[in-house]
Amino acid sequence: MPSLRQDIATRTWSIIATERGQRPHDFKKTGVRPRVESYDAKCPFCPGNESLTPDPVFVVPDRGDPERWAVRVVPNKFPALVVPEAGIERRRKRKGLYLEMCGCGTHEVVIEVPDHSKTIATMTDEEVELIVRTYRDRFLELDKADWNQLIIIFRNQGEGAGTSLVHPHSQIIGTPIVPDEIRRRLEEAQRYFDDNGTCVYCDILDYELKEKERLVCANDGFAVICPFASTVPYEMWILPRNHASSFGELDDDGIGDLAGILRESLLRLYHLLDNPDYNYILRSAPHYSAGEPHFHWYVQVLPRLTKRAGFEIGSGMNINVVVPENAAAELRKVQMV
Amino acid sequence: MPSLRQDIATRTWSIIATERGQRPHDFKKTGVRPRVESYDAKCPFCPGNESLTPDPVFVVPDRGDPERWAVRVVPNKFPALVVPEAGIERRRKRKGLYLEMCGCGTHEVVIEVPDHSKTIATMTDEEVELIVRTYRDRFLELDKADWNQLIIIFRNQGEGAGTSLVHPHSQIIGTPIVPDEIRRRLEEAQRYFDDNGTCVYCDILDYELKEKERLVCANDGFAVICPFASTVPYEMWILPRNHASSFGELDDDGIGDLAGILRESLLRLYHLLDNPDYNYILRSAPHYSAGEPHFHWYVQVLPRLTKRAGFEIGSGMNINVVVPENAAAELRKVQMV
Repeated sequence: MPSLRQDIATRTWSIIATERGQRPHDFKKTGVRPRVESYDAKCPFCPGNESLTPDPVFVVPDRGDPERWAVRVVPNKFPALVVPEAGIERRRKRKGLYLEMCGCGTHEVVIEVPDHSKTIATMTDEEVELIVRTYRDRFLELDKADWNQLIIIFRNQGEGAGTSLVHPHSQIIGTPIVPDEIRRRLEEAQRYFDDNGTCVYCDILDYELKEKERLVCANDGFAVICPFASTVPYEMWILPRNHASSFGELDDDGIGDLAGILRESLLRLYHLLDNPDYNYILRSAPHYSAGEPHFHWYVQVLPRLTKRAGFEIGSGMNINVVVPENAAAELRKVQMV
Repeated sequence: MPSLRQDIATRTWSIIATERGQRPHDFKKTGVRPRVESYDAKCPFCPGNESLTPDPVFVVPDRGDPERWAVRVVPNKFPALVVPEAGIERRRKRKGLYLEMCGCGTHEVVIEVPDHSKTIATMTDEEVELIVRTYRDRFLELDKADWNQLIIIFRNQGEGAGTSLVHPHSQIIGTPIVPDEIRRRLEEAQRYFDDNGTCVYCDILDYELKEKERLVCANDGFAVICPFASTVPYEMWILPRNHASSFGELDDDGIGDLAGILRESLLRLYHLLDNPDYNYILRSAPHYSAGEPHFHWYVQVLPRLTKRAGFEIGSGMNINVVVPENAAAELRKVQMV
């Protein structure tokens, strides 16, 4: 019998439908996958091809050879939103019956490592730490611009997750508005705080650390769970153990902890499902809600194993064919070498 | 320069980013596509294989030969939601910190035609009329069950749209709750009605019929537009010209008009983009909002030409790379034979 489960943080429901009883091997990709080499002469993100991208806005030099880069951040060549030349005009323009505003914002690409063939799961902790530090530093920088109200850091891994470039990279987009979906999340968290006097994410964290059946792994700074109302099979939330609404509050210890746990959770996924496509999204409070007691930043990992179809689009409700407790148990069991 | 556009019906924003200047041919599938035959001996939906599906709940007999079926509706073999055996238990159950309820509802498959190779665009008007009539009749029937609060009729065309079965079919799901995304749509429409005294969809319809730049086609009962804040390239809304909040209100004249315009819009898409994958969703008011003056049912057609990635999931805002006015102009220009 399927069940409906509520995400208490957003009050959205997911359908957990397990009639098909799918197991990890049902989700593994079939067919031979092409071997990815460490260097691709035609890749715009590979070392030596720097002229194929716009000039970098941020570079982390290689520790051993300062002439080379370890992480490189460039403006997106085809930006969804662009830095305004003369400040932002927030006032909406009437366009007949409708409303429009200029597409101001920021759209950057984080080229994570020089090596074309890596992915977070197969990087060293040190490499991932440089990436996380870059996220934090760019977050703080972009958060200063008055045309960015919300900063979204995300990673699309594999074609099924919407990327066309193989070279390991993430993206950072600053939007000039707080989208209504984000506002709704904040409102629901606020309502929970009003009713309970506590942050809903802190409560989830305490509960899951105690219950353990949906816990995947944890370290000093973070815990990883498969959320109770997971929207897709093997969804994971990486939650900081100390309350903080904005990712910008992450300190140097936290950077190391996040890098370690991000790599560990993605490596578990990599082994269990044979390097699946996924998105991860760093969900942080918008600029004007930083410091609020009711919101809590976290990283949402969404493997792309099933397709969103008419029902999911039409209802806003997902059908998830793997019970989150089973997903967590399988992720826990992965042998870490 | 990209722009942000607001959907005044839902108050969500889309980013219209046209830096890549994509044209219809950029979206056409590459590679040789396998020819689909009219009959597939292994297909559970093909005539002769009726024993491979659960018993039908509704059958439209073939006009020429009443021994054969023209449309066949069966319960989904792997249902997301199931008809409860002893009425619905609406009260949520506490599960520790969380809430859960039984997965009651209805999940049916509409096998649209006996011919394995057809799609709405290549059917006759008479065939599409039987499908639309089936939708209406099943809608009215399922709407009576107290475990269905919202009925969603949808069609997933092609693998990219989330279907694994080639044989032409649609699905009908009745959900035991009104998902929060649907409730939000209703609230926004209600708010517009409170402010203006008119239905927002009626206002959009009047405006687009007058402006014409986003109009694709129209007949006596319906008009098709590319909405101002289209979420994906070549999105279309098929709007009934007379106000009605529930699809159940569609009368016999309306069935013919909807069949004609549904086939025409999908045929325009078929020719322009070479039979692209798409979802369509029949968006109707939930049971308890039928008859409301502020909501208006319609069919949303969403071609699956680009992938939803980390940003779209993380912000709830879409990036659309084709200007809706250009999409409408190209769809209008398609030569209809």
